[in-house]
Amino acid sequence: MRTGIATVCLSGTLEEKMRAAAKAGFGGIEIFETDLVTSPLSPEHVRALAADLGLGLDLYQPFRDFDSVPEELYRANLRRAEAKFRLMGRLGMDTILVCSNVATASIDDDALRAEQLHGLAELAAGHGVKVAYEALAWGTYVNDYEHAWRIVADAGHPNLGTCLDTFHILARLPSGGPDTASIEKIPGEKIFFVQVADAPKLSLDVLSWSRHYRVFPGEGQFDLPKFLGHVARAGYNGPVSLEVFNDTFRQADVERTAVDAMRSLIWLEERTARHLAVEAGGHGAAGSAEGPSPAELARASRAYAMPLTTLPQVAPPTGINFAEVISADGAPRTAELERLLAQLGFASRGEHRTKPVSLWTLGDARIVLNRQQARGLEPAISALGFDVEDGVAAAARAVQLRAVPVPRPSQANEEILQAVNAPDGTEVFLCEDTRWVAEFGEDQAGAPAGGEGTDDGERSPSSVGSPSAGSPSAGSPSAGSGTARIDHINLAQPWQHFDEAVLFYSSVLALTPEASQDVSSPTGLVRSQVMQTARPEGGLGRRDVRLALNLAPWIQSDSVKGARTDTFQEHVAIEVDDLVAHARACRGRGLPFLPIPENYYEDLDARYDLEPGFLATLRGLDLLYDRDAQGAFLHFYTASVGSVFFEVVQRLGGYDGFGAPNAPVRHAVQHAVRHGARPGG
Amino acid sequence: MRTGIATVCLSGTLEEKMRAAAKAGFGGIEIFETDLVTSPLSPEHVRALAADLGLGLDLYQPFRDFDSVPEELYRANLRRAEAKFRLMGRLGMDTILVCSNVATASIDDDALRAEQLHGLAELAAGHGVKVAYEALAWGTYVNDYEHAWRIVADAGHPNLGTCLDTFHILARLPSGGPDTASIEKIPGEKIFFVQVADAPKLSLDVLSWSRHYRVFPGEGQFDLPKFLGHVARAGYNGPVSLEVFNDTFRQADVERTAVDAMRSLIWLEERTARHLAVEAGGHGAAGSAEGPSPAELARASRAYAMPLTTLPQVAPPTGINFAEVISADGAPRTAELERLLAQLGFASRGEHRTKPVSLWTLGDARIVLNRQQARGLEPAISALGFDVEDGVAAAARAVQLRAVPVPRPSQANEEILQAVNAPDGTEVFLCEDTRWVAEFGEDQAGAPAGGEGTDDGERSPSSVGSPSAGSPSAGSPSAGSGTARIDHINLAQPWQHFDEAVLFYSSVLALTPEASQDVSSPTGLVRSQVMQTARPEGGLGRRDVRLALNLAPWIQSDSVKGARTDTFQEHVAIEVDDLVAHARACRGRGLPFLPIPENYYEDLDARYDLEPGFLATLRGLDLLYDRDAQGAFLHFYTASVGSVFFEVVQRLGGYDGFGAPNAPVRHAVQHAVRHGARPGG
Repeated sequence: MRTGIATVCLSGTLEEKMRAAAKAGFGGIEIFETDLVTSPLSPEHVRALAADLGLGLDLYQPFRDFDSVPEELYRANLRRAEAKFRLMGRLGMDTILVCSNVATASIDDDALRAEQLHGLAELAAGHGVKVAYEALAWGTYVNDYEHAWRIVADAGHPNLGTCLDTFHILARLPSGGPDTASIEKIPGEKIFFVQVADAPKLSLDVLSWSRHYRVFPGEGQFDLPKFLGHVARAGYNGPVSLEVFNDTFRQADVERTAVDAMRSLIWLEERTARHLAVEAGGHGAAGSAEGPSPAELARASRAYAMPLTTLPQVAPPTGINFAEVISADGAPRTAELERLLAQLGFASRGEHRTKPVSLWTLGDARIVLNRQQARGLEPAISALGFDVEDGVAAAARAVQLRAVPVPRPSQANEEILQAVNAPDGTEVFLCEDTRWVAEFGEDQAGAPAGGEGTDDGERSPSSVGSPSAGSPSAGSPSAGSGTARIDHINLAQPWQHFDEAVLFYSSVLALTPEASQDVSSPTGLVRSQVMQTARPEGGLGRRDVRLALNLAPWIQSDSVKGARTDTFQEHVAIEVDDLVAHARACRGRGLPFLPIPENYYEDLDARYDLEPGFLATLRGLDLLYDRDAQGAFLHFYTASVGSVFFEVVQRLGGYDGFGAPNAPVRHAVQHAVRHGARPGG
Repeated sequence: MRTGIATVCLSGTLEEKMRAAAKAGFGGIEIFETDLVTSPLSPEHVRALAADLGLGLDLYQPFRDFDSVPEELYRANLRRAEAKFRLMGRLGMDTILVCSNVATASIDDDALRAEQLHGLAELAAGHGVKVAYEALAWGTYVNDYEHAWRIVADAGHPNLGTCLDTFHILARLPSGGPDTASIEKIPGEKIFFVQVADAPKLSLDVLSWSRHYRVFPGEGQFDLPKFLGHVARAGYNGPVSLEVFNDTFRQADVERTAVDAMRSLIWLEERTARHLAVEAGGHGAAGSAEGPSPAELARASRAYAMPLTTLPQVAPPTGINFAEVISADGAPRTAELERLLAQLGFASRGEHRTKPVSLWTLGDARIVLNRQQARGLEPAISALGFDVEDGVAAAARAVQLRAVPVPRPSQANEEILQAVNAPDGTEVFLCEDTRWVAEFGEDQAGAPAGGEGTDDGERSPSSVGSPSAGSPSAGSPSAGSGTARIDHINLAQPWQHFDEAVLFYSSVLALTPEASQDVSSPTGLVRSQVMQTARPEGGLGRRDVRLALNLAPWIQSDSVKGARTDTFQEHVAIEVDDLVAHARACRGRGLPFLPIPENYYEDLDARYDLEPGFLATLRGLDLLYDRDAQGAFLHFYTASVGSVFFEVVQRLGGYDGFGAPNAPVRHAVQHAVRHGARPGG
């Protein structure tokens, strides 16, 4: 598939945009007129630069307000168009986008429109230009793609075709716009161009929605694989080009946005191939466990004129292998972290053979404490390990999706681990087992080395993902109770990378985004986006992986982790079997709990009418409580060390949330503690 | 009028919110439940703090999802309510907000609702509590205020009344919600509470609109004076309290937001009194030039049970008296500014008697160059003078609207000038004349001192506002042409203060906000908000004052001016009689023009089919061109010095805009220049 991107998607000057698009690997670009008009580069210079960069100049756009006008204005519009055709000649471009008239349309007559567009195409032909006519969703008379196509068909000029834009088509679907299936009735060679954009479902007026909230495919809620499947079956084989107006992308780093954009198109190709394979093979819904086989997928990707590149297939991860926290060697914060881990019941499994890195475990929960951070930065979550079946395939998929591999020169006798960088700089490790644990040996804290350190031969990821399998759990006698594991990780995201992060974890790791939630905090609303694996079919069982991304106000820097503002807080949540017992043991070890206000317990009592003894237990241990339709949730938080804190949770019944109603309490108390307020009533 | 504010409007902890509200002068607050639940302060402590601060605790809110439920849930809801009534006893509060059921309503029966609310009111009575029932705009069964009132009336309990919230009522108006006039049919004593919020007109789903985009009265588009007029005529005399959910206010400085909120309520009082006076006196529309007399206004403010405080009345300003640019004494940037002013045709009118400040004039355009800036900051626009009839009255009005006066110890023989700080720190001077010009004497640049420097006795503002009157213009022979004046000022605004700035210039200076526009730039969309005076009646004549506020991406600091990011650019625009001649003269003096790309002129030609000689003139002089229905606009920009640049404009015919279609060109070229790109094709 030929990939493209409109310059309006990116920040910067035309030259900066072109360089970033080429570097990200796009086949071509659409030149958005304003970018050319405001550029000091001459058309000839732009043409030469594109040639140097190997970038096609695939579409000049937009040419507005042409059709449905009286004769005099039609003549003026032809003159205006001819100036642009001459300009395109200098640019070496052959396709122009003409969108349906919004501003000056005054005559609602399809025959007249066909005649005027025929005249335009005739003029264009003289300049070697093709006209792609598109229905804007808010066009005065022409606002659906079937209508635009009928006019193009009636005009019957070889230099006139249509342009399909997913936004204009799919945004109108809920309110009774046309179905997309009839795309297949348009001859492929009459589709001159295809523009794709995704968008979150908003009940906003369609113009504002279009101009500010479009996102790259896979970051919104449109069914784009289905759309592109129709396009492929219509026989189209031209560029599939992103046209995304987004307030954030306009401000963000141009090279990052271009990579994010490219990732979205590559993943869209795969999802389209999968969709086509499912439809061809009579499988269940695309994306289900009963998906197409690799052979079926390969067949589908080659079935139409438009070839679809596919990726190494991977299943969603089966567990969180470890979490790494980074801190500076010898810093007081590092000692604080070590103390906190011990108080939480983690046992030190000793130092890494060659690096100032230690391993701490509690049951199957593994925390790597990396003491290689630069001085002056705050402790932060620096890496996550996910359990995967085939690390090499998973890493290859990630790299094909333009993820940047983590450079990791492995030393003799060290496990070779695959890892890529997530958009916020977190290193994502793709682990097949826990053999790396054997690299930690000299025990410093005096706790007995046991568990994973000795089961070198174990390679099945199930040894990690399931508490009952393989590796011995709760090796440390200081642990408060039986098994334990990482329940979820909560990462704070800079606002510029939020959509990019959702796309990354979706496409690279096959996690599924849930609807996002806003949580109030003393410094503003925090948007919380859960990404997780599916629940075991038909049950209330555990999800293997849960990740929560927080978009906090005022997290604006994309600098290194640990150098951020004080609202940048992230945490690792550990699930235990008996939270109350574990909390008591932690308290006995002197763990600093996040103090919960008395007012919270009074409100909890008003809401839930809890048994007085149970309420007293919650109150006495600073525990929080929540309920959903399937069960209940008990949890507590530790004090923060730098940007990092820990949570301990217990899920009762089939509780499937994260205690969101309690999040404002956490934010408020953390804010008060940071600002030196006296905790407690 | 008793003023109030809900804690949810403000950022910070409950204690921070209470202190800020008290400091801003609010009579009372609404306690938003989450703020109490997340607070370490006990209810008794909150009560004592409120008493210390002289702050009423006027409303506890919200109590949700009470009515329209089956018997069992009703019992549970009563239990839940009783816990809150006990809590209110500890807080010393007597009114609770109960909003119509959204989540658990399952029985649509007004008689049942009346019965359930009667039961609740009976329980409340035992605790000395009054229940204010409110229809949420998205309530399942009850979503308009007339319906809520009918139920309250049917329930017939003295402890049950209704709460009116402007958002829930006015947000539904365009889609056929109830008219507001029947508010007057509700007995005043049955209106237990009034909440006010404004909002921009958005076609967004009403819940999202309500939760994120409410603004303070006067910052949006609701007709709140009309609403409050009904409330006054209904006989209500309780708190009028702000309940504004706004993403920005949640993040901004709590004390500033509280002051902004207070200003909005004070102005709303005045606007309501004016509305009532107009309706009583049979005048034209409120706000028209034919407004009520001060006596009529005073009468209207005392006509109902709810007294309305009014303010000193002022007319809109009649001109821009001067603009001040601040820069550091002896800094290279300062010399650059002086050179730029001379090249623009400004003449130096010498130094101030006592301060390192110089005056530059071109016709009636006066630029004060203040060299008292701290080293290390960039030049910035630091003050604006507006021509007003009565400076003392205007300043008194501003101060009553909580503007902070500029401390300005005047020395012997210095003019006493009135000034207040705008939200972004710009000093706003309220000038009756130009006598202050006489304080500038020793000419440094050798240009002849003339004009205002000598007409000490002139006190009429018309000497400033009109080019034909009083003060001699174009005193300097170096000026390119006849008269000149300040056409408009463009100020960059930090995002946190944007709504606040609109309210400030509306309420304090009586400027009128136009619809805002988004302009694309290489670093994101720039929101441009024009605030101006009315056009002379029935004509195409000049507006006296035009101000454009730009909300640029990445302007995030509220630190001192001159310390901001490189997208922070602001300018002074000078209107001249013959722009082409003036541009030639400037070019002759070596003025650095902002270079305009050749591509711009080609596009201009395509769009407007300009006469070739004229186009060549534009091209040769880096001039920009625009048209509207009434006329045309010629303008050019200078290079920037720090955050400041200048524009020279000519309005042909009745052109009423600012050349907005050319703004992307300016932003792109400024971006390129800042980043060292070679200007020109």
